[in-house]
Amino acid sequence: MFSSSAAAAAPEQPLAVWARIRLADSRDVPHIHRLIHQMAEFEKLTHLFSTTESSLSSTLFPSPQPPPFLSFTVLILELSPNPFSQSDEEHKDTANPSLFRPIVRRVELKSPLEDPEAVEFASPRGGGAVVVGFVLCFPNYSTFLAKPGLYVEDIFVRAAWRRRGFGRMLLSAVAAQAAKMGMGRVEWCVLDWNVNAISFYEEMGAEVLPQWRICRLTGEALQRYGADGGGRS
Amino acid sequence: MFSSSAAAAAPEQPLAVWARIRLADSRDVPHIHRLIHQMAEFEKLTHLFSTTESSLSSTLFPSPQPPPFLSFTVLILELSPNPFSQSDEEHKDTANPSLFRPIVRRVELKSPLEDPEAVEFASPRGGGAVVVGFVLCFPNYSTFLAKPGLYVEDIFVRAAWRRRGFGRMLLSAVAAQAAKMGMGRVEWCVLDWNVNAISFYEEMGAEVLPQWRICRLTGEALQRYGADGGGRS
Repeated sequence: MFSSSAAAAAPEQPLAVWARIRLADSRDVPHIHRLIHQMAEFEKLTHLFSTTESSLSSTLFPSPQPPPFLSFTVLILELSPNPFSQSDEEHKDTANPSLFRPIVRRVELKSPLEDPEAVEFASPRGGGAVVVGFVLCFPNYSTFLAKPGLYVEDIFVRAAWRRRGFGRMLLSAVAAQAAKMGMGRVEWCVLDWNVNAISFYEEMGAEVLPQWRICRLTGEALQRYGADGGGRS
Repeated sequence: MFSSSAAAAAPEQPLAVWARIRLADSRDVPHIHRLIHQMAEFEKLTHLFSTTESSLSSTLFPSPQPPPFLSFTVLILELSPNPFSQSDEEHKDTANPSLFRPIVRRVELKSPLEDPEAVEFASPRGGGAVVVGFVLCFPNYSTFLAKPGLYVEDIFVRAAWRRRGFGRMLLSAVAAQAAKMGMGRVEWCVLDWNVNAISFYEEMGAEVLPQWRICRLTGEALQRYGADGGGRS
């Protein structure tokens, strides 16, 4: 468990944690659900939130599960006060262990941290680790490159752990995977008023496309197309 | 072949054609390649175009081919002066005929049409049909809905056939499919200065999201993430 009491134990030592990014599986559904709800609260969009653990489970972890990064894929970021065991890192329980090997990194914290949600977010993999954030991505396609890419739908780090490079670690993991798979692009969206995020993304090497706007057809407007048979009438 | 000579044959009759939207297969690759190149020319972006027939073929029509709308999916719009034969409509050659039945519609043209590319774009299915446009889409995912949707990467109608409702027919086909599959959204992008397109999309029931901007990591900036192992350094 992470709390400021760790600081008292070794005041002269830098506070170090081990960070791990690994593929999510169905055991992570309750945490993913809570993280998405926190994101909706942060964005003041809870009125648009209708996700349940059951709907997440059936859409993100169907059986059989497609290989990671060829369909909807969730990576979990978790932190532990102790090194992760090697066997756990090898991820023997995933269908395609060769496709994504967990990324593990020792992180020195400049100041002690209080995580009031540490119990609630205890990792299902145990070992005293806590789930801190996630990224959800899926393949997209560029017709000009004739190559798939990865689209990052969500990237989220819990409030207690922000501004410590974990968002960058999650996004870098997706970029590294895209590069490794020979993909052409990684894309995501940002709100135009979020100048801090925009600076951060540009610093990571991304360009923000100023002229494109997203169009969305949803709800009853979408259902009407189902009713009239796809433009037959 | 479509030309203005059809008008001379029956001056009092409305000019009718049959329009069909069907799943593309590997036989359509040469046409898809030419259509994407025309789109790049239209957008003055040929310097970003590096697509070949071979790269399209391997990325859009891999073997085995995933079911339509669960991965990258191309729909072809073709027109014929004669009704399409029923057997051709049934699409016996696709892996999952039940998932998308071709949409066929009789379209009356208000004026005769000259298609200078009719020979070049003769349909690989024969029957005197010509390929007129395409749409490429793939699944995306909403974490607030816990539902997949469809993202429309490209929608294109050749110059000779524009402003006759064929773009709407293609987009409606995607919307109808999304509704039929119980998906939550259809999304696509538009350039902010393209006010005609924006009006058209809004009329179709879509909302344009004003605040979101696309971020893109590509080229050497992306390759660097592959080299450093995903944030390990």
